[in-house]
Amino acid sequence: MMDSPLEKARRIFHIENRTVVNCLSEFYGTLLLLFIGISIVHQFDLSHKQLNTWIQVNLGWGFTIMLCVYTCSKTSGGHLNPAISLMFYTLGKLPLSHVFYYIAVQTLGAFIGTAFAYTLYLDQTHHVLGDVRIASGPNGTGTLFTSMPAPHVSNTIAFWDQFVGTGFLALFVCVVTDKRIDIPSSLHAIIFGLLIAMIGMAFGMNLGYPINPARDFAPRVFAAMIGYGWEMFSYHNYYFWIPILAPFFGAIAAAWSYFIFVGFQIPDQPPSYMKENKTDGDGIPLKTTDLA
Amino acid sequence: MMDSPLEKARRIFHIENRTVVNCLSEFYGTLLLLFIGISIVHQFDLSHKQLNTWIQVNLGWGFTIMLCVYTCSKTSGGHLNPAISLMFYTLGKLPLSHVFYYIAVQTLGAFIGTAFAYTLYLDQTHHVLGDVRIASGPNGTGTLFTSMPAPHVSNTIAFWDQFVGTGFLALFVCVVTDKRIDIPSSLHAIIFGLLIAMIGMAFGMNLGYPINPARDFAPRVFAAMIGYGWEMFSYHNYYFWIPILAPFFGAIAAAWSYFIFVGFQIPDQPPSYMKENKTDGDGIPLKTTDLA
Amino acid sequence: MMDSPLEKARRIFHIENRTVVNCLSEFYGTLLLLFIGISIVHQFDLSHKQLNTWIQVNLGWGFTIMLCVYTCSKTSGGHLNPAISLMFYTLGKLPLSHVFYYIAVQTLGAFIGTAFAYTLYLDQTHHVLGDVRIASGPNGTGTLFTSMPAPHVSNTIAFWDQFVGTGFLALFVCVVTDKRIDIPSSLHAIIFGLLIAMIGMAFGMNLGYPINPARDFAPRVFAAMIGYGWEMFSYHNYYFWIPILAPFFGAIAAAWSYFIFVGFQIPDQPPSYMKENKTDGDGIPLKTTDLA
Amino acid sequence: MMDSPLEKARRIFHIENRTVVNCLSEFYGTLLLLFIGISIVHQFDLSHKQLNTWIQVNLGWGFTIMLCVYTCSKTSGGHLNPAISLMFYTLGKLPLSHVFYYIAVQTLGAFIGTAFAYTLYLDQTHHVLGDVRIASGPNGTGTLFTSMPAPHVSNTIAFWDQFVGTGFLALFVCVVTDKRIDIPSSLHAIIFGLLIAMIGMAFGMNLGYPINPARDFAPRVFAAMIGYGWEMFSYHNYYFWIPILAPFFGAIAAAWSYFIFVGFQIPDQPPSYMKENKTDGDGIPLKTTDLA
Repeated sequence: MMDSPLEKARRIFHIENRTVVNCLSEFYGTLLLLFIGISIVHQFDLSHKQLNTWIQVNLGWGFTIMLCVYTCSKTSGGHLNPAISLMFYTLGKLPLSHVFYYIAVQTLGAFIGTAFAYTLYLDQTHHVLGDVRIASGPNGTGTLFTSMPAPHVSNTIAFWDQFVGTGFLALFVCVVTDKRIDIPSSLHAIIFGLLIAMIGMAFGMNLGYPINPARDFAPRVFAAMIGYGWEMFSYHNYYFWIPILAPFFGAIAAAWSYFIFVGFQIPDQPPSYMKENKTDGDGIPLKTTDLA
Repeated sequence: MMDSPLEKARRIFHIENRTVVNCLSEFYGTLLLLFIGISIVHQFDLSHKQLNTWIQVNLGWGFTIMLCVYTCSKTSGGHLNPAISLMFYTLGKLPLSHVFYYIAVQTLGAFIGTAFAYTLYLDQTHHVLGDVRIASGPNGTGTLFTSMPAPHVSNTIAFWDQFVGTGFLALFVCVVTDKRIDIPSSLHAIIFGLLIAMIGMAFGMNLGYPINPARDFAPRVFAAMIGYGWEMFSYHNYYFWIPILAPFFGAIAAAWSYFIFVGFQIPDQPPSYMKENKTDGDGIPLKTTDLA
Repeated sequence: MMDSPLEKARRIFHIENRTVVNCLSEFYGTLLLLFIGISIVHQFDLSHKQLNTWIQVNLGWGFTIMLCVYTCSKTSGGHLNPAISLMFYTLGKLPLSHVFYYIAVQTLGAFIGTAFAYTLYLDQTHHVLGDVRIASGPNGTGTLFTSMPAPHVSNTIAFWDQFVGTGFLALFVCVVTDKRIDIPSSLHAIIFGLLIAMIGMAFGMNLGYPINPARDFAPRVFAAMIGYGWEMFSYHNYYFWIPILAPFFGAIAAAWSYFIFVGFQIPDQPPSYMKENKTDGDGIPLKTTDLA
Repeated sequence: MMDSPLEKARRIFHIENRTVVNCLSEFYGTLLLLFIGISIVHQFDLSHKQLNTWIQVNLGWGFTIMLCVYTCSKTSGGHLNPAISLMFYTLGKLPLSHVFYYIAVQTLGAFIGTAFAYTLYLDQTHHVLGDVRIASGPNGTGTLFTSMPAPHVSNTIAFWDQFVGTGFLALFVCVVTDKRIDIPSSLHAIIFGLLIAMIGMAFGMNLGYPINPARDFAPRVFAAMIGYGWEMFSYHNYYFWIPILAPFFGAIAAAWSYFIFVGFQIPDQPPSYMKENKTDGDGIPLKTTDLA
């Protein structure tokens, strides 16, 4: 059989070291995620919500997560989020060294993805903003890149918001990937996409649901560099560290709450009386005697 | 093989008693459902429909149901709704004692989930409402928590509305979980999510489709406790008992209508003449002679 | 094994005659379809597009079709549409006698479903319309029930519109159910739902995409009976027969166009050279020599 | 066994030559795509965004792609886009001769599909536009058919926009169809649909995401012929060649970037230590020793 160009190129480019491979995947996946995601937000803000409305921010980020997770699903697993990587470490599914590698390449990928998105909407940005780059306030446009909470939202609530939002992300990631829940792996990324959309519909009002330290921090640095300046960090009493830190705590707490309340309680196999009764129904796993 | 942290923790936290396990799951699932769902409604109302519009209330609750049902699918079954639990009892799939346990923990979970959602939007609530907590009327905000029908909707129609809305929920739950309809169980929760969205698009105008006694009652109690007061119950001639009672009747009537009209009529196996003809088509199950 | 209440009731209610069973299913499925669908339109019109917007009309009808088709998928096949039934007759998948039975019960089901929806929004209708029931014109509300074309849309275009809209419905129904396209049957109804939504986004502007003789005619009769009167039929130069007749022609023409252009050309089995090459790729079925 | 009408007709219409068959499919699929897609845009523009809003343009085109790809999935593969066909050539999955055949029939199909859509909205077009056909400017309606960039978007950015938009399309087509990513083929078209929607939410603001030379060029020719004239080509310094040329470069570059960063790095089979550990989890493919 003659080899296709793909198989020939595979032999050239294939890398054996799985750590390098996984880092490449997390880098590439997070780059794509931010390239697309920041473009969605630019289309939302720069069109003054005439093209994208809030639902497209929700669904758009959701479909993006779906596709970027598919992309990395067979190599790094497609975390694309430092909080998710640390959570998997606490579950024993990622070595600690990899958590640090992953966080580094996720943040780097997020930065470069943001830069790409910026170039794509350069003309539109110039058309709408002119030369003005103000981070916050009535004419502030820092939200083109990252979260900038309204003055009436305290940093305490901001921390709670990111704890909760990232918590739900991590919790349902554990549900979906739990072998005992038994969802075919080809459906995981689709459900993650709808999960991201749901979080934006429920927990988007306080901060715009960053729920990902790399997604919030890297574009913040980029914005500071292109003219928004130090205010990207000093704003709201140095709020910027909250969406970096809170997600880690939220992800770990919520993931373990799932396992304690539900995950650890799922029987390893359905009890035999359930199998006998296949056509009858959908009975929940109780002792047969309870049904008498 | 070395055990992962998860497997070690499983041995510590695993509970043998299935009744306790199922109650824990229903409690946890309904808590998550209301935590997310009440947050969706707060984002809708507090942003004056600038962030969430009605479609996000529909899809957001739908995706939430999807994820919460997945969460409990292998333990309690993920009813998350007293009317659904009673309906399953009438089908012989849940012991009567469990109906009472489930209703208790569902209501408790709904209450605590509401309280969590309230804390998340505390600053936003204060910003929009100040210190005013009025249940109904032009400045009423009781709908942040529960259903408050417009004056021109009678309690008779309200009862019919909840009978119908919960009826469709129960009916299609029976369709989707019917072994003879043969939908893979990993798709059930996704379809339930779209079902919830559909109900909000068709039966949301009268009352905002509570279709779940726990979802309506628990947040009503919570709202009464945080300052909305007795009017949460006395409003609209003591309307509050309607979304508690009507769903039970609707769920049972509609579920059985499905089985009588369709479910009982599905043949146990496709007749043999259908199997012979695999590549030809999608023929409906008729007697072969009819096709002559 | 003790029998569940469901299995006991099954023995009582089970009907042997498949023709009766299939007619019951088509009746029940179309009743549900119109009950939900007409409610969606009422919520859209009576809220002056404040609750439902056009996308909810699209997605709502789509999810409704999905669920109603699932309901009838193992008995009648879930046509729920006279044009689809006739189309299946021309493909040899439904006996002619059944086409007549199906059309009768579909129309009857659609009528009763409309009546149910009407009762649900009785208070809202009275609140918005008072006692005025005008079929067409600036204050016309006949569109609560059925299609009423704007004056600037000619009946010729109306015919073409229904030919095309129902044509696309039938065409893609043939694609999805084609055994050679090989889509798992549990996904069919989901895809039909998205198909209906798509038709509303592409072909909804002229007439509001009835694309179903029973869905258009039965509510028209109902509206005429509750006070809209004869104008429901005489309007627009007796337009009413167009969405009855055109769908039959469109469905048959489009279905056969699919088979001639594509369906008949699908090879019965993938050629062997494709199977050898599984990991390499997604090659289209060409002669191997073409690839040299 | 008696043959159905379908099987009889199959024997008459079946064509043996796979090149002819594949060209017929690409022609038919692209015709359907543009018939539906141009209708979506007409409904959006002619209703002044009262019926379709931007999200329906996104989802509508997405669902259309889904259905048209399903239609051609077992014959030509359902490229429906010259840039995708050329990309598959560079991957060794389509002979070069076929690229030219495909581009020809895709463009022809796109032209005829546009003409069909035009007839469907003839009355609406006349009602809204009267006899005025102006390609660009404040009263320009060339966007009913094809992309017409705003004056403040430079042709350089336009090229980059089409490079990127088509690039993401091609990249994720490679992900989804990669055998090593292992997504069941019956889900491919659904994911492509969501992919198209995502591109419209992220990369729709500059040009309206044509991302398909046939989709942009054929309607442009049609518009020029029905009265919009030469300005369809001369506008914006002969912009029209950009959405023809840029997609080819973007598709090839992005597809190969996927393979280099991720695709070539996916191991042929999951390593054995992953298989041992099925119930434990979702571990990423690392060396076992790393987990110590």
